[in-house]
Amino acid sequence: MEIKDICSHIDHTLLSPTSTWDEVRAICEEALEYRAASVCIPPCYVKDAAKFLAGRVPVCTVIGFPNGYSTTAAKKEETLQAIRDGAEEIDMVINVAFLKDGRGDEVWEEIAALRKAAAGKILKVIVETCYLTEEEKELMCQMVKETGADYIKTSTGFGTGNATFEDVALFARCLAGSGVKIKASGGIRTWEDAKKFLALGADRLGSSALIKSLV
Amino acid sequence: MEIKDICSHIDHTLLSPTSTWDEVRAICEEALEYRAASVCIPPCYVKDAAKFLAGRVPVCTVIGFPNGYSTTAAKKEETLQAIRDGAEEIDMVINVAFLKDGRGDEVWEEIAALRKAAAGKILKVIVETCYLTEEEKELMCQMVKETGADYIKTSTGFGTGNATFEDVALFARCLAGSGVKIKASGGIRTWEDAKKFLALGADRLGSSALIKSLV
Repeated sequence: MEIKDICSHIDHTLLSPTSTWDEVRAICEEALEYRAASVCIPPCYVKDAAKFLAGRVPVCTVIGFPNGYSTTAAKKEETLQAIRDGAEEIDMVINVAFLKDGRGDEVWEEIAALRKAAAGKILKVIVETCYLTEEEKELMCQMVKETGADYIKTSTGFGTGNATFEDVALFARCLAGSGVKIKASGGIRTWEDAKKFLALGADRLGSSALIKSLV
Repeated sequence: MEIKDICSHIDHTLLSPTSTWDEVRAICEEALEYRAASVCIPPCYVKDAAKFLAGRVPVCTVIGFPNGYSTTAAKKEETLQAIRDGAEEIDMVINVAFLKDGRGDEVWEEIAALRKAAAGKILKVIVETCYLTEEEKELMCQMVKETGADYIKTSTGFGTGNATFEDVALFARCLAGSGVKIKASGGIRTWEDAKKFLALGADRLGSSALIKSLV
């Protein structure tokens, strides 16, 4: 697999709390040049990025990010605003706290509510694997399948751990034949690792470092 | 100053992404026992905590937390929902990205919008000092004063740095006579430091560790 093929699977990402428009615009230009799958940027820059890219690369943003413990009402409004601003892809963080609290039904309902709010757009569900048991990872595969989300995504990059080969392999097993795709994200910094994640079944890679290394 | 006097200035805090209700309820019980100023907890638990505390200790929650780059529309809905759920105190994170981007007018407008959304409630403005220059810290004092917020707050605890004595002293100088109060937060783990922050002019301390050390 060549580097340009890998690039077509990358959500070229900048999610630093101090990001400026110049930095975000650079991400957009690099995504165009290297034909990334999308740019993944803070909600407050979606409008400007969508205008700048004008459909040439889809704009992806993050919802309830990175802690996931906002209310469903807040996440829903954040999603609707992102879409009004031009986002084509929505990466939401599940309510890990409620999952840990045994309130899986509310985690399910929230994903379903955002699925509805983001109808016609790509919805990725960040489950933040570093905090989950194996059983919870399997449960989340089930929920992502049942709610009709497009992707399960491993990590925010702000938790205590990042994407692992083991977790992507687990998702690939649990989701085989379901139509749900996998996004590996957080800490992916080498082309070697990128290839391995794709070989294990990932369809997207969230990375701030890979395309930057070509610039 | 005795420990019980310090406790009356503490926002007893739990903001872990994996917090369960049992953990949040323990924070509520400890806040009652040690007469904390408030409990500072994730938005998704405000409703349950407000019901449990029934006005005996105010419930505080966080908005646009911790990265601050949500849209104003999303932060506004998050604030309104928190108030509907029973929050009496709102700790919002400013859009540091826009401040860095030279869009200070939008940072100002956002604080003003949340001031309006949280009318009658206590509004604290988290400026995340670790990312700011001295000039930006002074500018934020000015904005907090002009928008009518109740407190300036140093840190989220999720950034690259925490509350410092220098920053609290700077806020105290800039805000002298303005009526705006100061909340020091992030990394406050000893009673010695707590006393020093209060002596320098802080009125509230955000801490997960102080009251826990008494339990």
